[in-house]
Amino acid sequence: MEKQIIIGAGLVGSLHAVYLAKRGVEVEVYERRPDMRNTTMSAGRSINLAISHRGLKALDRVGLKAKVLEMVIAMPGRMIHDVDGNTNFQPYGKEGQHINSVSRGGLNALLMTEAEKAGVKIHFNQRCVAMNMDAGEVTFKNDATGQISTVVADHIYGTDGAFSEVRHNLMMTERFDYSQTYLKHGYKELSIPPAADGGFRLAKGALHIWPRGGYMLIALPNLDSSFTVTLFLSFEGKHAFENLNTEKEVLAFFQEVFPDVLPHMPTLIDDWFANPTSSLVTVKCFPWRYKDKVLIFGDASHAIVPFYGQGMVSGFEDCYVFDQLADELWDDKEALFQQFEQSRKPDTDAIADLALRNFIEMRDSVADPTFLLRKKIEKAINTKHPQKWIPLYSMVVFSEMRYSEALARGKQQDSIMAEILSWEGIEENWEDEAVFARIERLCLA
Amino acid sequence: MEKQIIIGAGLVGSLHAVYLAKRGVEVEVYERRPDMRNTTMSAGRSINLAISHRGLKALDRVGLKAKVLEMVIAMPGRMIHDVDGNTNFQPYGKEGQHINSVSRGGLNALLMTEAEKAGVKIHFNQRCVAMNMDAGEVTFKNDATGQISTVVADHIYGTDGAFSEVRHNLMMTERFDYSQTYLKHGYKELSIPPAADGGFRLAKGALHIWPRGGYMLIALPNLDSSFTVTLFLSFEGKHAFENLNTEKEVLAFFQEVFPDVLPHMPTLIDDWFANPTSSLVTVKCFPWRYKDKVLIFGDASHAIVPFYGQGMVSGFEDCYVFDQLADELWDDKEALFQQFEQSRKPDTDAIADLALRNFIEMRDSVADPTFLLRKKIEKAINTKHPQKWIPLYSMVVFSEMRYSEALARGKQQDSIMAEILSWEGIEENWEDEAVFARIERLCLA
Repeated sequence: MEKQIIIGAGLVGSLHAVYLAKRGVEVEVYERRPDMRNTTMSAGRSINLAISHRGLKALDRVGLKAKVLEMVIAMPGRMIHDVDGNTNFQPYGKEGQHINSVSRGGLNALLMTEAEKAGVKIHFNQRCVAMNMDAGEVTFKNDATGQISTVVADHIYGTDGAFSEVRHNLMMTERFDYSQTYLKHGYKELSIPPAADGGFRLAKGALHIWPRGGYMLIALPNLDSSFTVTLFLSFEGKHAFENLNTEKEVLAFFQEVFPDVLPHMPTLIDDWFANPTSSLVTVKCFPWRYKDKVLIFGDASHAIVPFYGQGMVSGFEDCYVFDQLADELWDDKEALFQQFEQSRKPDTDAIADLALRNFIEMRDSVADPTFLLRKKIEKAINTKHPQKWIPLYSMVVFSEMRYSEALARGKQQDSIMAEILSWEGIEENWEDEAVFARIERLCLA
Repeated sequence: MEKQIIIGAGLVGSLHAVYLAKRGVEVEVYERRPDMRNTTMSAGRSINLAISHRGLKALDRVGLKAKVLEMVIAMPGRMIHDVDGNTNFQPYGKEGQHINSVSRGGLNALLMTEAEKAGVKIHFNQRCVAMNMDAGEVTFKNDATGQISTVVADHIYGTDGAFSEVRHNLMMTERFDYSQTYLKHGYKELSIPPAADGGFRLAKGALHIWPRGGYMLIALPNLDSSFTVTLFLSFEGKHAFENLNTEKEVLAFFQEVFPDVLPHMPTLIDDWFANPTSSLVTVKCFPWRYKDKVLIFGDASHAIVPFYGQGMVSGFEDCYVFDQLADELWDDKEALFQQFEQSRKPDTDAIADLALRNFIEMRDSVADPTFLLRKKIEKAINTKHPQKWIPLYSMVVFSEMRYSEALARGKQQDSIMAEILSWEGIEENWEDEAVFARIERLCLA
């Protein structure tokens, strides 16, 4: 029987293992780190994850959706906090639509366990140190014992993340396009503990945002009534990590720009100095495969910034799309790998761009009156014509539309809305019958 | 005395060595290959080089312009060959302006010798295998003897080309932006030997182009009356390298699309199967330095495609710009390196984009009537207003204007010309007084 191995037991690798195991083939997974289920999580580098429709769809195809939904907190909208402490709730979609806050570690552990239940063997402490791609040979080093071992497989899947070692081997091949692009911003994870009575200190059912133009703070709820908080801030400049080096500077900064949340962050200073300042990278590359031997998935082939909540979700969708193609092409791996990379690449490029755009929206536009007016108009058009005008956020987060199509339609919508918003008096009269009819004509043209 | 080392004795490294030596500092160069002056050149991977104003300016600053001009052949224009064998000469600029064909090997040898005359020691067969950038320590392996040696320097310049090992070390540092992007096209070097009487088989004073839309052949004259010929062709597709595998296929292809040159290429088949098919890459990255320890130059920091003849030239301009800044900042290397990368990066990004655009122009537009009409109109405007309207090609090739400014002005000119060329009857009436006055108003606005 042909042997498949997966390098990387993160979220995407573990889900892909479940998918492959359901096909009844031999699957082994090699993971660089120790088994996270037995060790304390390394804190401070894990942005809380939002899981939405595409991710749930991919879980559903292998029967795991219900189990995952037991461990999430629904977030039907954004709660915007201004500098005076005023809040404004903006629903993400229609009544009943929401994204879900989930613990990265909890979800990863569940998927590993499900993979094992399906018959997958996961080897831990196995760092990929060399590959002979033609031979399907991978050399691993056990970082705990120093032991070197070599594995031969028919097909190798690299799900080893943004700094993928498998991709590093693809990079040595001819004509491999590659880019890694860092944001000027970094992030630092902080926290809001539960209240004294054990409840949530902020509204539970929201993704909280403190948008401040060039930077922002966000908070996502956890099952234990705490929030995971993330500060996105430039490395250099006026308001920047480089200028926040002392307790006094950090407190003064929060006092000035996030005063309402400061009383809820009793561990701010401890968190600040304990947690690293991490960078944010977009990785694009092509091809994603070497012959029928090696294929990379998830962050390894398309790492994106976290601002659309689509990093893990797009990786899960990789598993889903691969599995659909595999129904037809399983016996011809070269065709399967090739069709997968061809069909998927435009969509992962699109979500990379969308994620970068959404950073501007989250940190800036959400507090802008024109943005809010546009949201209102779009909602009214969408209510009346639910199939013909779907706001971009909904196409990305609540639909299965290809990311590339969502991006293209989003750009069309931008230019239509730019025209409508330029009309004199639009903020006052958009609901007037004649004006709204004119808006409709333009939107449905 | 502080020690400077240069890794890579190619064109840019050798010129930079001359520049540094003229400052009276200790300079040593480490080169991976054997001394090219003692060995037969490895043929078939070296596109003939065109050297133009920026390159000559950089040579002039260290007194080498006259020597180099002795080894060039002036090319005042393009000679376009259509498929029926008709030719059309298009001057590159004004009377007296020309680019120069030069042998890469000959120029490189001259620069090495000049560096040595200035007191530089060049070590050959020294492949950089490891670096400790903080310590300024570089480990070299002599590929001939296997010997390993370690050198410590105060400042290290990486001029080791598009696949730079020095850059590979920079890539390991935090937040290093990097991209490598391959064209779908590759190239193969071919040749036209001298005629039986020892003369040139094609007109000597021109860069010959056989533009065929998706691909092209070019030829540059050599001092020995031969031409170096390069075919730029897609790797895959209908007219593509993948379909030219036999003698018969190659001959049929040339017979069909380049019939006029075939009789001048008696060694076509030998050249075809002896020479590799090489790929074309654009490399961009940032930063270009590590503290005041390491700085990369030329192709190592900005490899571009060859279609504007500005690859070597932009590297030479690096040396020139660095030296100008060094006049002020030599005693503060960190400030020098930083100002160099900051000031130079927008220009090397611009020439990378310009070089990609010029591929389209060379292989396609030069045979297009609208393109030719535009050239005529631009020439007329430029003749009347030589300071206010300079055609893009002239800004890039015959001026010292920053590449970034040339690109920006070129884009403005494109939109102005697109409007003018859209006027009804423009091909007939552009010289009419009223029409030309209208063109002038638009161009000088």
